Amino acid sequence: MSGATDHAARRERLAAVLAALDLDAALVSGLRNVRYLTGLDSSNAALLVTASGDALLATDSRYATGAAAVCPDVPTTVDRRVGTALLSAAADRGRRRIGVERHVVTAREMDALTAAAGERLTLLDLGEAVEALRSDKDPQEVGHVETACALADEALAGVLAAGLAGRTEAEVARDLEARMLLLGAEAVGFESIVASGPNGAVPHHHPGDRVVQAGDLVTIDFGARVAGYHSDCTRTVVVGEASDWQREIHAVVAAAQQAGVDALSPGAFTADVDGAARRVVVQAGFGEYFTHGLGHGVGLDIHEPPWLTSDAGQAGRLPSRSTVTVEPGIYVPGRGGVRIEDTVDVGADPAGAGVRVLTTTTKALLSVE
Amino acid sequence: MSGATDHAARRERLAAVLAALDLDAALVSGLRNVRYLTGLDSSNAALLVTASGDALLATDSRYATGAAAVCPDVPTTVDRRVGTALLSAAADRGRRRIGVERHVVTAREMDALTAAAGERLTLLDLGEAVEALRSDKDPQEVGHVETACALADEALAGVLAAGLAGRTEAEVARDLEARMLLLGAEAVGFESIVASGPNGAVPHHHPGDRVVQAGDLVTIDFGARVAGYHSDCTRTVVVGEASDWQREIHAVVAAAQQAGVDALSPGAFTADVDGAARRVVVQAGFGEYFTHGLGHGVGLDIHEPPWLTSDAGQAGRLPSRSTVTVEPGIYVPGRGGVRIEDTVDVGADPAGAGVRVLTTTTKALLSVE
Repeated sequence: MSGATDHAARRERLAAVLAALDLDAALVSGLRNVRYLTGLDSSNAALLVTASGDALLATDSRYATGAAAVCPDVPTTVDRRVGTALLSAAADRGRRRIGVERHVVTAREMDALTAAAGERLTLLDLGEAVEALRSDKDPQEVGHVETACALADEALAGVLAAGLAGRTEAEVARDLEARMLLLGAEAVGFESIVASGPNGAVPHHHPGDRVVQAGDLVTIDFGARVAGYHSDCTRTVVVGEASDWQREIHAVVAAAQQAGVDALSPGAFTADVDGAARRVVVQAGFGEYFTHGLGHGVGLDIHEPPWLTSDAGQAGRLPSRSTVTVEPGIYVPGRGGVRIEDTVDVGADPAGAGVRVLTTTTKALLSVE
Repeated sequence: MSGATDHAARRERLAAVLAALDLDAALVSGLRNVRYLTGLDSSNAALLVTASGDALLATDSRYATGAAAVCPDVPTTVDRRVGTALLSAAADRGRRRIGVERHVVTAREMDALTAAAGERLTLLDLGEAVEALRSDKDPQEVGHVETACALADEALAGVLAAGLAGRTEAEVARDLEARMLLLGAEAVGFESIVASGPNGAVPHHHPGDRVVQAGDLVTIDFGARVAGYHSDCTRTVVVGEASDWQREIHAVVAAAQQAGVDALSPGAFTADVDGAARRVVVQAGFGEYFTHGLGHGVGLDIHEPPWLTSDAGQAGRLPSRSTVTVEPGIYVPGRGGVRIEDTVDVGADPAGAGVRVLTTTTKALLSVE
């Protein structure tokens, strides 16, 4: 892993994109985007980046001290109305064509930005330009994801060793989350899914009062956060002895998941990766029960580009290095389900071809008590 | 506490507001607003409520089963593009004037809604109509906040009994959060603040690697979540013996906090409540170091209306029953700080006058190891 994050280099890459888009500056409003470009983690901040690479940060008084510590090289204006403050500054500096994140700012905020722009500025759509930069990970970012994956794996091992039978789904979820925190996660990455027995047929089941019992398949989807970066892992285990149908769908999902991992490489078409896994499920006769995309990027957001999907609107190529999930599932209404998910580092080796699975818990069908 | 939540009654109240606003229907896009009106907790849903009280829910396939279970009385359309699907339905039913939540939907989503509205619909701003309803709590909601407060108090007691000295801020924060989960919180309410020594001067300090040591003031701001509802509590303790300046600012903040609690009542002007607490800090000569508003509502969101502030844009009257925080602070740059915060049930007794502090950890200056 490398040393300190080079936020200035990231802003330079954004500046190059702006020049290509014929924009004089970008008003970056997404809080994770601002963090990516400055290091500042706050609930109210925005960043102006010009096509020549200059930057100006705005945040409110609660975060002024933090900004001075984290990004001393970026001039900061302290103003609660961060977006309009930066537009005024842009206009004063003679910028004209400003890209704004229309997928981030609310319609009400957009009204205020439009009013502040007045006659002097033309507001255009920046789109997901910063998210596209973020989809290509540097070694330090991958390191954080890897650390999060490792401690999540360790927490799961502890929960499974303690046994599941007799505990409610919610108790299992909270046990797992507490273990991640005590193992060094700065936070739980997202609310864990623990779906037992028939609840396994609901991909986004909220863990509830159902008591896990012998014969259940139990799907556990969970993650940790380290230095802002997430892990994401799912395993489906069986309590006691698996029945034939349980073994069958688990084997199909495991084969599909492996096919998806095998299809990963820098530059791969995401639709091809999704297709490689989906084909296995379809050919086994369970296609109708695999009701979601294959996976997503993982980083400062738990769900971010690239999207491993065949959807025309979101499909594309994997960047030179990405951290993505591969998570096929089969959900049989009224009966139960299986999902197996890894977080994978794609493009790991110096030649840019390596694929490294970061979530290392076995994908064999584990039988637990 | 009452029995099942009456979501239909909440929708009726919204319908009455729509009639008063001369709207034919509301397109509710805020996810907590949708949950408040239907019970459905999802990451992609919207709700159409007409002025005559009819409702139509939209969500995607991941949440269709959950919606059928949680709000069987609300017809549901399964469509990933929840907002535009509901606008089409509204147009088909002859609705014309639709209120949308411009403070919630993104500018990009607004573009799609505007296109879907076409000539048939007129889109107006619904504003915070649903948030205003939510600010007035029913007994069941207060019960959830109370449960969250009680288990957070218990978790803090455990952390303080274990001692703070020699642990990093981050370790203390994670210990506290793990205890809340194991005591039955469904989630941590928000990322805990543990700010020791000079870090106490930063109101929103991220707990880090600083090791807590004898003589530190340590500010701990934390909360739990139960059934979607939050608690919010802050205490500042001293490790070992307090010095004179530490005792002084703690006493001022404690007096200000009590003055704020004493000023609460249903119908009170929020600016008066803020002023009652602020006056104590100003008169003690520390006014410049109390840099934020006095408090906020607590419910399905950790920060929600009513806002206990003198800010012209946000001030108003407290509703008949609310759960709010009272949290003055003094932050002395380079030295440290004190904040004391309760979550308070305002309007608790049948006569509507009672004020009940739900966070019951002592507000005396606790000395811990």
